[in-house]
Amino acid sequence: MFPSHIIDLAEKLQKICIEKKLKITVAESCTGGLIGGLITSIAGSSEIFERGFITYTNQAKGEILGVPAHIFMAQGAVSDECATAMAEGALTKADADLSVSVTGIAGPSGATATKPVGLVHLAVARKGLNTYNECHEFKGDRTDVREQAVESAMKLLNKVAEL
Amino acid sequence: MFPSHIIDLAEKLQKICIEKKLKITVAESCTGGLIGGLITSIAGSSEIFERGFITYTNQAKGEILGVPAHIFMAQGAVSDECATAMAEGALTKADADLSVSVTGIAGPSGATATKPVGLVHLAVARKGLNTYNECHEFKGDRTDVREQAVESAMKLLNKVAEL
Repeated sequence: MFPSHIIDLAEKLQKICIEKKLKITVAESCTGGLIGGLITSIAGSSEIFERGFITYTNQAKGEILGVPAHIFMAQGAVSDECATAMAEGALTKADADLSVSVTGIAGPSGATATKPVGLVHLAVARKGLNTYNECHEFKGDRTDVREQAVESAMKLLNKVAEL
Repeated sequence: MFPSHIIDLAEKLQKICIEKKLKITVAESCTGGLIGGLITSIAGSSEIFERGFITYTNQAKGEILGVPAHIFMAQGAVSDECATAMAEGALTKADADLSVSVTGIAGPSGATATKPVGLVHLAVARKGLNTYNECHEFKGDRTDVREQAVESAMKLLNKVAEL
């Protein structure tokens, strides 16, 4: 279901997390569950994954992950600030060691004057460390944007898991 | 990312749900987010999907969806009773009109004397109706089992959405 280079990243992540006893969680907006689906595609994933959150609307991001309302008003849901609050909220709610969040505009609709289709903000939070952010402008259609978001999320997770 | 016959089911579901103004949510165990990922792969999904829950462990099923502990002890997490409690819990927690739950043994490990790899229980709950259950014994590897679970979930969702 997932391309092999993305499955490789998930396998690598699982190995690191088992070795370091890190529990992962996910807070997904535009990827809608794909990252959780990918992490759990690797046999043995229950050793590192316990729960995840699909928060598609602002209301869900607020109620489930505790993203404060002022972020939606000031920076919007597709922003570093929102991605950070999602990842840090998920870490707490899941009592995990490592979390990733993705919030972006997968298209074809949803673009604004300042935020184009393909704009995706990611954050990876890890207990005891500062949260890492990335911002991408992916090209392609809805499926391409989401797949690139999943791939970037896995790369950033691997990087922070290895620290 | 998903096979075209499964995407067709998701498109059909979206059309029905938009027409009938039904909001969907998901409560995923062994599929780990794939159903949410599939529903949101169709452009316009924000009209019908607001949030979803990936509950991989019993603890997550209990804490997030309110599955009562006696079900894990009496029938186990892979059972009609658990699938029903997951789907009905998700419906309430998300304030949705329609929900699907999936709980099963994707393998290669996890089988017991009475529950083989490939055993998957599904439930679809809809506001005001009795919850529908299905139980399957899927063949194939972990990926095959999960993909068949996603397909069955979409078929059952479509059936209940059409009522």
